[in-house]
Formats: sequence, C-alpha cells, structure tokens
Amino acid sequence: MYSVTVRGHMMIAHSFRGDVFGPAQRLHGATYVVDVEFRRPSLGGDGIVVDIGRATEVLHAVLEQMNYRNLDDDPSFAGRNTTTEVLARDIFDRIAASIRRGELGGEGRAIASMRITLHESHIASASYDGVV
Amino acid sequence: MYSVTVRGHMMIAHSFRGDVFGPAQRLHGATYVVDVEFRRPSLGGDGIVVDIGRATEVLHAVLEQMNYRNLDDDPSFAGRNTTTEVLARDIFDRIAASIRRGELGGEGRAIASMRITLHESHIASASYDGVV
Amino acid sequence: MYSVTVRGHMMIAHSFRGDVFGPAQRLHGATYVVDVEFRRPSLGGDGIVVDIGRATEVLHAVLEQMNYRNLDDDPSFAGRNTTTEVLARDIFDRIAASIRRGELGGEGRAIASMRITLHESHIASASYDGVV
Amino acid sequence: MYSVTVRGHMMIAHSFRGDVFGPAQRLHGATYVVDVEFRRPSLGGDGIVVDIGRATEVLHAVLEQMNYRNLDDDPSFAGRNTTTEVLARDIFDRIAASIRRGELGGEGRAIASMRITLHESHIASASYDGVV
Amino acid sequence: MYSVTVRGHMMIAHSFRGDVFGPAQRLHGATYVVDVEFRRPSLGGDGIVVDIGRATEVLHAVLEQMNYRNLDDDPSFAGRNTTTEVLARDIFDRIAASIRRGELGGEGRAIASMRITLHESHIASASYDGVV
Amino acid sequence: MYSVTVRGHMMIAHSFRGDVFGPAQRLHGATYVVDVEFRRPSLGGDGIVVDIGRATEVLHAVLEQMNYRNLDDDPSFAGRNTTTEVLARDIFDRIAASIRRGELGGEGRAIASMRITLHESHIASASYDGVV
Repeated sequence: MYSVTVRGHMMIAHSFRGDVFGPAQRLHGATYVVDVEFRRPSLGGDGIVVDIGRATEVLHAVLEQMNYRNLDDDPSFAGRNTTTEVLARDIFDRIAASIRRGELGGEGRAIASMRITLHESHIASASYDGVV
Repeated sequence: MYSVTVRGHMMIAHSFRGDVFGPAQRLHGATYVVDVEFRRPSLGGDGIVVDIGRATEVLHAVLEQMNYRNLDDDPSFAGRNTTTEVLARDIFDRIAASIRRGELGGEGRAIASMRITLHESHIASASYDGVV
Repeated sequence: MYSVTVRGHMMIAHSFRGDVFGPAQRLHGATYVVDVEFRRPSLGGDGIVVDIGRATEVLHAVLEQMNYRNLDDDPSFAGRNTTTEVLARDIFDRIAASIRRGELGGEGRAIASMRITLHESHIASASYDGVV
Repeated sequence: MYSVTVRGHMMIAHSFRGDVFGPAQRLHGATYVVDVEFRRPSLGGDGIVVDIGRATEVLHAVLEQMNYRNLDDDPSFAGRNTTTEVLARDIFDRIAASIRRGELGGEGRAIASMRITLHESHIASASYDGVV
Repeated sequence: MYSVTVRGHMMIAHSFRGDVFGPAQRLHGATYVVDVEFRRPSLGGDGIVVDIGRATEVLHAVLEQMNYRNLDDDPSFAGRNTTTEVLARDIFDRIAASIRRGELGGEGRAIASMRITLHESHIASASYDGVV
Repeated sequence: MYSVTVRGHMMIAHSFRGDVFGPAQRLHGATYVVDVEFRRPSLGGDGIVVDIGRATEVLHAVLEQMNYRNLDDDPSFAGRNTTTEVLARDIFDRIAASIRRGELGGEGRAIASMRITLHESHIASASYDGVV
C-alpha cells in the first residue's frame, strides 16, 4: 500500500457537554495540527498517490471552514460535542466528499482509504481511519 | 476506526544478555517516551474513544511502576531481556489489565485494540499492536 | 550560562481587536505548548539550575490559571489583546512572581533570567526573554 | 504485532516529468528523512524484532547508494519519476533484498512486513507498506 | 526581548567546491525547513512583534526565489558555496531588505534583530543571527 | 553570528544524591539527545562554520565515552551528581578540549562559543552555553 500525508492546522474555540469533560465543559479552544494520509494500492502513471498540490488545497479549504471560529456556533455540529475524534471524522467526510466531487482529479478517485489525525497538543491526538 | 493517543515517559536502567546486544550488555539506561493509541470502531455517546483524563492516569500509573528504577532488579522481568519490544508488550498487557478492571470506565471496555510505541531516541522506536 | 527547560500546555479561547488580525478578530482558540527556560551562571551544590519537579509544578500552576478558559472574560487581560507575545510576557511575570515568593526554593532565587516560548502551531511561536 | 523503527536520511537532486508537478519539473532537491518499520508477529529468543545495529547498517547502506547524488543520472530510475512514493517503494525493495541475502541475520528472515516512510518536509511525507 | 518565529521550507539542488565537502561536491539537494525569528524590545500598540501574516508572506516570497531550483545556476551565488550557513545569511539579508522596503509594515520597522535557522535534516541545522 | 548545530545521543544509567531528587535517587537511566551548536562571527573561505563531518565525529567520540555505561562507576564524575546540567557542561569541556587539540581542523579553532543541549525527554532539557 502506498500513502502520501500532508499537514495543515486550524485554531478554534468550543466547549463540551458531559461530566466526563470536567473543566473542558467551559468555553476554551485548541490548535489542531491536522495530518491527512491518502492511501491507494498502486501508483498512477506519474508515480504519485495524489497531486500533492491539490491535496494540500483541499485540506486547507476544509480547515478554512472551521478556522478562527467558535464551533459551538456552527450549525453543522449542533447537538454534538466537537471532540477531537468527532472533528477527525468530520474532516474525513468533508475530504471524502471533495474526492467524490473530483477536486483531487482523476488520480484522487483511485484513493482507497484515508487516515485523518488531529494533534491537539504535544501529548494527545485523535484519528479517524476509513475506506473512502 | 477511531483512535486516541496519549503520551507519557519513564527513565529506567537495565542491561541485556546476548552477544547481539554488544555494548548494551553493560548496565545503561533509557528515557522511553511512550505513546498509547486506543482504538474502537465507533464512538460512545459523548463523542469520545475514551476518557482522555482517565487514559492518561492509567498510562502514568503503569509507567510509575517502572520509572526511576533498574529493571534488572524487577522480578516481573526475571530471565527476560527488557528490550524496547518486550517493554512495549509489557505495557500493553498492564494497560489491557487496567481496562479489564474497569479503570478506563464503561467506555474503556469498548476499546478493541491498542498500539504501544516506545521512542528510545530520535532515531529508534518499537511498538506492540494487538487486540485488547 | 546554564539553563533548564520544562514544557507544559494550555488550551484557551480568545479574540483580537484590530484590523491587523483579520479573521482572528473572531472568537477562536489555541493550544499553547509552553517552554520555560530558567538560566543561571553557576550551579548550586546539588548540580542543578532549579528543582525540576518544583519548576514543573510552578509552570503547571500558572497555566492552570488560564487553561480551559476564554481569555476575553479574564479581567487580568481587560483592554489588551492576548496575543502569543503578550501571553509569553504574562507567563514570564507570573513565574517571576512565584520565584520571588520562594516557590522554586532557595535555588530558584539564583535564577538570573528566563525565556518563555509559546508554540501556537507547527509553524509559529512567540517568546519573551528577560532578566528575573 | 511487534515492530521496530529506525531512522536515517539522504540528500538528493532530481526533477520530474509531467504537468502535474508544476515547478518541480525543474531540477531541485530534497532531504528525505527515512523511517523503516520492521514487523513480525512474535519475538525471537533475545526478545527483539531485529538486530537494531544491523538494521541501521542495512538502511544506511541502501541510502548511501542514493545519497549526495542526482537521481536523474541514476540508471536504476531511467524513465521513471523519482517521486517520494516511488523512492519509498524502491527503498522497500532494496531492504527486502538485503533481508533475503541474510544481511539482517537469522532473526531478519522472520520479518513479515515493513513500512518505509520518507519525510520530505515538516508538512509532507510518503510511505510504502508491504509484505516482505 | 520579545520574539515571533515563523516557519517555511524550500527544496533545492546544489553542489559544493572544496575537498572539505567530500561527496557533497557532487550535485545533490536538500529540503531546508526555515525558521525566522523576529525580535524587538517592546511590543507595538496591537500587542505584537510583527504582523504574522505579512511575516509569513515575506518569508514565502524570499523562499520562492530559490524553491525548486538548482542554486548552482543562480547568478546571485556565483563563485560562492551555497552552504546552509551562507543560505541562512542570504535569507537574512533578503528579509532585512524587505523590512527596509516596508513590506512588514510600520511595526516591521521596529524589528531590532533576527535569527534565521535552516534545518537540513533531523540531525543538522545552521543559523545566522544579526542586527537588522 | 553564524552557527551550526549537530545532533547525537547516548543512553546511560546513573543515580543522584540529595533529597531534592526524590525517586531519582534510585538507580535509573536516560536517553540524552545531544545538540551541539558551534558559533563564530564570520565564515571561513569554504563558507562554513565548521567541517560538519568532523564536528559529528567529535561529538560521537565524546558521547561514546559515556554511552551504554553506568555513570555512577565513572571516576571522572566521582563525588558529583551527573545531572543533565552537569553533563551539558562536561560535554562542553570535552568538545572544547577537542577543538584545542585541533580535531575540528583549522576552521574549528575559529569557533568562539558553543551551546550544548541535552534533551532528556519530550518535556525537559538542559544546556550549557559558553565561550570556547
């Protein structure tokens, strides 16, 4: 299996509902450094998994939808905790939709699976890994 | 598959038996920066893989059993080399036992698999990855 | 010159006032990974710059005052932008006050200068460096 | 599954053919920081996945074949783009051949799979993961 | 002293003249991950050292002049080895010229000194630190 | 001021004397990832601060004197705690002696100052910075 990974980041505010979150129930925030790993079993004719320039643009476009915002005010997350795990899945779904719309080009349609990892600090991260 | 990873560390002394280890047969030591990745196929009601606070406590409690010690004197490793690989497996087993004892709460019992990675320097690491 | 550096982090929400900040004028947030470098020209009798356990406790106590909060609601920052630079200086002042209160012990009083660095992402950081 | 990962690097020049590469069609270069993860389902008698000293030597020997060179002049890549993905696969094949020649010793023959990751910058990497 | 640091990178080919360089006399290449630290003794009215958006643009514009190129063909380096040290100084001079042209705005003119660091691998870097 | 930094590591056992060290009074160990920054105000004819190959050899030779050893048994540290700070200074002195013996060549004699940093974990390090 081949893979290519690109990195971006976003800086958001949010709060959580549920006793399990302790002080994180208060409004706070996070920098998420986001890695997207694109995988496919064989390479295309140019010897690449995906056009890395386009992949970076798609990642940045997805992050821009959340960057510098309070996710508590984002209707797309209404009624859900925007935990690192939930955001990893959400970013996965948004990039998968980009691929289906052809925004990663013809090669992009050959992507078999992806892993999205959000690093929330030097000691914690969360991922979602799935078939596209 | 969803995952959450937390990081801790321990500083231990030990020595190895076997010609393959060369100078590492002498008493020496290591800082192990330890990553534990907890995985489960779907999220619980709070939108989390595991209570990250409890996960960190469990990791620290396990590392505390070895931290600032000479592992050559630890009866639980008698007759075995405490290689990075062996320690990764040992930490896996100790955390799996914590999960079975309920120390990660009800959500913790939903954990399907874990990966334990010990970074022994900027150029070497070892992991154990298994079903809980 | 000798130095010791310890690391902690905090996760906060805030917003900025001023056109220069563009979209960061909206409520957003950040993880700040915080390094504190303590410096002194010679070592004490134990061969240390500072008791690293106490230094870590002091850093964590300072970060706890801001962690999981919206800094826009913190009266100590009223009328000021909580930029990374301003926060670096603020943390410097709070740790310097701890030193003066003796919270780093007798050795702590020998500290000559400090550098506080806040990493806000994998591509940006800010520091304040000054005499204690 | 157990694994051990070792790191090395190489500094090469190359250029790419194909409009998808944009300015990277010009002669340029890269530092590739290379991680090799060796995996096997159980440990040998010494408690190791592989002799880490030999593994590092094998990695360095493979990288030395490309280090400080213009890959456009290397006949083994004639007619192919030396993308990060292609290089990951090529290094995989060269290390797999080393294993078959016995250069990782008897334990090396027990290696079941490997993952080769080339970090080309702080924001991009590529991997090849396969059965040995 | 306050500082802000931003990061970018470039991927170049080059070769060196002089026996001291050994195999690096051959045409090869490097990824340089470049950190620019801007310093000033006090903050401006907005609480910043420099407009970090403009600072990043200036850094990227400077790196773009060299990115994806063979520096052996760049007349601005004719007769000189483009060592990591020389490139650090060159980038320093180009950014200092940007500051003088006002490209970092009014706040930029208050910058007192800068440190440019080029990381050429996980084990080597070079810097130039000077008054602007 | 120009600088070049090279990295190596060592893995040692030791114990400390003094109540301030708490559990670190027991025999334990550490991986020290060691950065040496060499500085000089101007470059030599080849455009370098120091022959990076020689600098790496000198660093490795110094670390080899301690690597895979119990520092409690090393007579050169008798009666002293081998804290990270003390080791940073000790490595500084050993490299400075190498420079004086000409082991970094003629260019090496132009080195004005050095900074030695020992990273003992992902959250703690110590340095010694001085004139050669």
